Amino acid sequence: MSKIRIGIVGYGNVAAGVVKAVLAADDMQLVAVFTRRDPDTVKLQEGKAPILPVSAADNMTDAIDVMLLCGGSAKDIPEQGPYFARSFNIVDSFDTHAKIPDYLAAVDTEATRAKKTAIISTGWDPGLFSVMRLYSEAVIPDGATYTFWGKGVSQGHSDAIRRIPGVAHAVQYTIPVESAVERVRSGERPVFTPSQKHIRECYVAVLPEANKKEIEKTIKEMPDYFADYDTSVTFAPLNELFEKHGKMPHGGMVMRSGNTGKNLQSMEFLLKLDSNPEFTGSVMTAYARAAYRLAAEGNYGAKTVFDIPPVYLSEKSRETLIEELL
Amino acid sequence: MSKIRIGIVGYGNVAAGVVKAVLAADDMQLVAVFTRRDPDTVKLQEGKAPILPVSAADNMTDAIDVMLLCGGSAKDIPEQGPYFARSFNIVDSFDTHAKIPDYLAAVDTEATRAKKTAIISTGWDPGLFSVMRLYSEAVIPDGATYTFWGKGVSQGHSDAIRRIPGVAHAVQYTIPVESAVERVRSGERPVFTPSQKHIRECYVAVLPEANKKEIEKTIKEMPDYFADYDTSVTFAPLNELFEKHGKMPHGGMVMRSGNTGKNLQSMEFLLKLDSNPEFTGSVMTAYARAAYRLAAEGNYGAKTVFDIPPVYLSEKSRETLIEELL
Repeated sequence: MSKIRIGIVGYGNVAAGVVKAVLAADDMQLVAVFTRRDPDTVKLQEGKAPILPVSAADNMTDAIDVMLLCGGSAKDIPEQGPYFARSFNIVDSFDTHAKIPDYLAAVDTEATRAKKTAIISTGWDPGLFSVMRLYSEAVIPDGATYTFWGKGVSQGHSDAIRRIPGVAHAVQYTIPVESAVERVRSGERPVFTPSQKHIRECYVAVLPEANKKEIEKTIKEMPDYFADYDTSVTFAPLNELFEKHGKMPHGGMVMRSGNTGKNLQSMEFLLKLDSNPEFTGSVMTAYARAAYRLAAEGNYGAKTVFDIPPVYLSEKSRETLIEELL
Repeated sequence: MSKIRIGIVGYGNVAAGVVKAVLAADDMQLVAVFTRRDPDTVKLQEGKAPILPVSAADNMTDAIDVMLLCGGSAKDIPEQGPYFARSFNIVDSFDTHAKIPDYLAAVDTEATRAKKTAIISTGWDPGLFSVMRLYSEAVIPDGATYTFWGKGVSQGHSDAIRRIPGVAHAVQYTIPVESAVERVRSGERPVFTPSQKHIRECYVAVLPEANKKEIEKTIKEMPDYFADYDTSVTFAPLNELFEKHGKMPHGGMVMRSGNTGKNLQSMEFLLKLDSNPEFTGSVMTAYARAAYRLAAEGNYGAKTVFDIPPVYLSEKSRETLIEELL
């Protein structure tokens, strides 16, 4: 059986996770990694594949079955999705929730025209968490769904702190409020403000001349990011930040409590990830398999995780899955 | 928009759960309940619909969009599935794991020939738990999956006790061993015998002249059911059994721990159900919606939960789901 030939656009932490997942999959092979940087400056953490300029992809449409877009959701993916869908089956983890409908439409237009299959917004949220929100709502229609994130590192919030003058490095953990989780479990269907669901722990290394009090105040009063939350700021030396807070753990849970008649029915889906980007890369790789199979069936256009039958995600045959897992 | 017209074959606890779910669904209506008993002896717990003999279904092929088979997996469903798939789209909760491949093939033959859609083995295990086993294995390929059941009432084990001479009534709870759950969480990928994963709690009411010591011994030494398990037997008066143990709670969890490289990644899916049959009925009802939609698209034959895109389960439109839940 011929292997699914994978290309990757952009090489960061998620892309490194994709490489790891592709290397571990018996039915896949890594063809190339495309970068907008000088290819000579990029080195794969593991695996072997040519590092090529993005422009080289145009000549490789016959050599790659699925292209995984691993750039950022702010600027890269909105441009790259529709562009690459003109020539490749694609999978991405576009995660700007509010812009998904427009992005989906843009990719769908190109993919449909080119007879390609695109699966957008994979990963875990959006992605697996979205799927869990759908399943749980469909089977417990009379109920309420809650998503909690963490304990985990939020890149966006960490970056916001790093932009404050005097800050050398910062790591921000998002942590669910345990009492909020318990209220959901009880079935009372509470209504929360965002700050009632999560607290924020910040570990900050500062430059020698920095004013810690002022930095702490700036963090805690930062609108949108921290002002509305129970936020703690702990200063620590730079080496301690790298040693103790250098990983990228994350996770969270999707919970739904509801009723059938008077009976309480509840469902929880939990993720605990030592490496957020590696897991995201692994999920994207499973959906690449689905994109390949859908395209082979002539099922083109832009899809979401909601549209993908679970059977398409596994390396195993349908018969084996039915025997082993049903 | 015309409503999905639902028929039910067999009227027990799960069927009553289906009725409840259909009544709560805006896009469905209950057409009839078919029974092999004397229809005059059957009364719906709630809702209104004609109770008809099973033979009347033959004349109602144009009046019913999806037939939900709510009989037992031991004898009813293996016969009824292929039979009803000749004339109706069907959904069942066939749960004899070992016989699923043969049953699927038998239903597929009839459904494909008749251009009908059948979704077999829905519910929660098989069903939602199967789906979770598949998702978790697909996104964490290097890992191990564990299914725990309970705390909940096992009908099969309760029945086994009730058949012992001198027993008036019995309720058996299956309960996960907490230390086993913790070992799975730790990522060590333990290998368990069945008895290391679950304990069994039995509540038993006996007839006046019964020999309790002998009954307890018979239970604890019953092969397959109890002999290999840590089993406790508590005797209680009949009224206490009905009052304190009269509900049908169940639940459990699917857990997978594994690695991407050296990083531990883990996933848990938990169900906590006050009413096992009502939840099963609710899941079947969601899959009835999927069967209806697949049939409308000309996607015929026998399917499993692995084959169904999540989007087909919800009453909401794809656009709404993408906006609200993705």
